Amino acid sequence: MDLKVNERIDRLIPQQLEIIQSVDTFAFSLDAILLAHFTQVRPKAKQQVVDFCSGNGVIPLLLSAKTAASIAGIEIQPDVADMARRSVKLNNLEAQITIHQASITDAGAIFKKDSVDIVTCNPPYFKVYPESKINPNEAKALARHEITMTIEDIFSNAYNILRDRGKLYVVHRPERLSELIVVGHQYKMTLKRLQLVYPKQGRNAKTVLLEFMKNGQEKGLNILQPIITQKENGEYSDEMRVLIYGD
Amino acid sequence: MDLKVNERIDRLIPQQLEIIQSVDTFAFSLDAILLAHFTQVRPKAKQQVVDFCSGNGVIPLLLSAKTAASIAGIEIQPDVADMARRSVKLNNLEAQITIHQASITDAGAIFKKDSVDIVTCNPPYFKVYPESKINPNEAKALARHEITMTIEDIFSNAYNILRDRGKLYVVHRPERLSELIVVGHQYKMTLKRLQLVYPKQGRNAKTVLLEFMKNGQEKGLNILQPIITQKENGEYSDEMRVLIYGD
Repeated sequence: MDLKVNERIDRLIPQQLEIIQSVDTFAFSLDAILLAHFTQVRPKAKQQVVDFCSGNGVIPLLLSAKTAASIAGIEIQPDVADMARRSVKLNNLEAQITIHQASITDAGAIFKKDSVDIVTCNPPYFKVYPESKINPNEAKALARHEITMTIEDIFSNAYNILRDRGKLYVVHRPERLSELIVVGHQYKMTLKRLQLVYPKQGRNAKTVLLEFMKNGQEKGLNILQPIITQKENGEYSDEMRVLIYGD
Repeated sequence: MDLKVNERIDRLIPQQLEIIQSVDTFAFSLDAILLAHFTQVRPKAKQQVVDFCSGNGVIPLLLSAKTAASIAGIEIQPDVADMARRSVKLNNLEAQITIHQASITDAGAIFKKDSVDIVTCNPPYFKVYPESKINPNEAKALARHEITMTIEDIFSNAYNILRDRGKLYVVHRPERLSELIVVGHQYKMTLKRLQLVYPKQGRNAKTVLLEFMKNGQEKGLNILQPIITQKENGEYSDEMRVLIYGD
């Protein structure tokens, strides 16, 4: 396997997979692990899963351990999409995972309307304001700030390709929760499950996990038990250790 | 103090107050205690607080222990409003608390537009569907089901009487969270704080506490630490004991 400058191979331990990361372009975060864990996907093969803003393909790789479904990743940056493709190859998963170098606004050109069972998305978290400090490293800026896409794009494109009652899974920051619900509502994507992630006992939430259903009824939202990621001493909590190390 | 049939006097222990309850018409729940605790009110007198759907006046009574502000309760049911008034008198709080027997849709006739600092509301939780089982006891039906008011009424009337950047505090069920945020957004009431209440560790949330700000900026929502109401053995958790018993 050819590694480029500043790339390294890390292990996804519970899944027994390897993943190429780069300090220059993209390294996945805990949020990707949380989103893959939160995503409910049946083990059966006859499904199509699409990961928006796929980065180095961490979500497709993690989901491949949960399902035999066909999984596609859409990543706009050529270098990052190439890194994801090489990770897919490194794990011999070319038959299950396809990486598309494209914008999520092209999703409708890649997938048939109303055909996809599940969309996942770990998007850039930050709105671009006139006063925003944008990372001069373009790859990192695109992964962090909504430069090439917006929350509207997530919902409009997910709605377009998802089948009726198909699911969209998103991980995001608490400060965007209202906007996610309001824009989701505009696109007939109904919030059905919500889980909050807290860094420690007694602290405010840092991360929200959301499951939307296309054309879902408004009745019935489940707010799942809170996830606490760290113990008081700063070590990972037991539930996070299971997700990261499998023990 | 005259008590009517099936009325009793209960104590609000940490506040050292007494409250008249009735098995026939209205007895407050834990949610009222949670909402009063969640409501941020300055101790200063120069403020107006209005409690919508006030029931037996439990929220005004609980808040009177946190602030010298003027507090009004609006309760549509004559018998229940009368019970609230008698509790205010029982505690010698007539100078601070006024109970209005009225619909919240009359709030604009009682309070000046843009004049109120804080609105609180522990509303009926359940939408009325054709298949809904409505309690044959009218008082209980009105307290439980949205028969005389809707979520829209809460926001439109709170928006009308609240001053710019005034706050609306609501306690509700998780299944209505999306609707509260969507309707709030329509009325320029922005969610600024959210706290979830879980019955036990590892269970889904049962209650949501929300703070909306009139004309608040969309930036910045704090999701506070989770509240767990019970220990594994079913006893109240330590934090709930503090709220209920003050120890």
